[in-house]
Amino acid sequence: MNMQVKALTFDTGGTILDWHSGVCSAFQKVGARHDMSLDWHAVTNDYRRLAMKGIVGQVQPAFNMDDVHRTALDEVLVQHGLQQFDAAERWQIFHAWHQLAAWPDFPAALARIRQKLPAISFTMLPLSLVLDVSRKNDLDWDAVISCEMIGIYKPNPQAYLRAAQWLGMEPSEILMVACHNFDLNAARACGFKTAFVRRPFEWGPEGPPDPKPHPDCDIVVDGFDELAKLVGI
Amino acid sequence: MNMQVKALTFDTGGTILDWHSGVCSAFQKVGARHDMSLDWHAVTNDYRRLAMKGIVGQVQPAFNMDDVHRTALDEVLVQHGLQQFDAAERWQIFHAWHQLAAWPDFPAALARIRQKLPAISFTMLPLSLVLDVSRKNDLDWDAVISCEMIGIYKPNPQAYLRAAQWLGMEPSEILMVACHNFDLNAARACGFKTAFVRRPFEWGPEGPPDPKPHPDCDIVVDGFDELAKLVGI
Repeated sequence: MNMQVKALTFDTGGTILDWHSGVCSAFQKVGARHDMSLDWHAVTNDYRRLAMKGIVGQVQPAFNMDDVHRTALDEVLVQHGLQQFDAAERWQIFHAWHQLAAWPDFPAALARIRQKLPAISFTMLPLSLVLDVSRKNDLDWDAVISCEMIGIYKPNPQAYLRAAQWLGMEPSEILMVACHNFDLNAARACGFKTAFVRRPFEWGPEGPPDPKPHPDCDIVVDGFDELAKLVGI
Repeated sequence: MNMQVKALTFDTGGTILDWHSGVCSAFQKVGARHDMSLDWHAVTNDYRRLAMKGIVGQVQPAFNMDDVHRTALDEVLVQHGLQQFDAAERWQIFHAWHQLAAWPDFPAALARIRQKLPAISFTMLPLSLVLDVSRKNDLDWDAVISCEMIGIYKPNPQAYLRAAQWLGMEPSEILMVACHNFDLNAARACGFKTAFVRRPFEWGPEGPPDPKPHPDCDIVVDGFDELAKLVGI
């Protein structure tokens, strides 16, 4: 990779973690107990949209994304007439976030990338969630920088600048990796290099809302094998 | 280990990293270029004392421990009549902090401990320094929580409580590991379990200033092999 970057920062929810399958499966299991067969894909995506709305761009919030996941779950259940889900069932769905699977091409790629450069999870998800899913998926990061720790959430530029400061690097020395243009565009505006990784199944059968990489991305890859190969060069 | 802890947090400078040897060696090398033979052990320890004085207990400082290491170096050179060290030589000594070796018993113990429980570097050192030394020593942490990220430095209780909050755990579910009573005592006052690991060579031939573990420590061990065995039970 001829970009002279010194580290890679990875968006984690969506880019690394398959939230749609994990959360949808939890909805399905609870729904089955109530003999329901809704479009759980749609419920899951409505839930995700509500959660993102609750956290994106927040500055010094009194809550983290776990709190948002709890609140947004209650809201989406009302929207879809599912108020009968009890506290234990709601916890089961909420807890699915802490048990998400990584996309299958990521764990081996992470290990390869780290032979060359530091790899950092840089995420709106809480630190404790990243710890849980990283242990579950055998992901060893060089560090986890959660926006919870910064107190300012992506895509606020201060979040990216603070992450670069903590890494002791210029933004131009960092490659931000994500499957979301909103994240990469904000990182690029702060001076980061950017890599778009296609995750066509992030939103399940519906497909992602913004799948076409912005033309200013430095790298566009179909998956993490391809990214690991580029980093190895 | 019958303490029902869910994670271990490790003081890093001194407990994990042999700062005395690394920094003393840098002083010696630069001194040799000037044909000097001072007591570099004493210079190194004076430097460490100045740096600790500059960072311990800080709340929202406008600097991190890298900055303190730079400033304290200039001060200790004046104290010892070493003003002739030029900028490149000062950088060489400063940079030794980012290249420290871990105590030899730690890397294997960390890998063993992580098979059982999450292990977190919880340190006054900057994130970028922990990243550098962790890569150098093949240390994979579950996370690095630097007081730089919290904005409040040990032994201020808010630092420990914030670390526990970010880990999503009660303080009583966390084992704080250190070779320093001041750190363990503060953690214990916040409800953490505490493990004292003896590091008799932390201050070089001079020996550590406070080597006797406080009687309220839950665990006292001579080294990390012993700690890893206890955690494995």
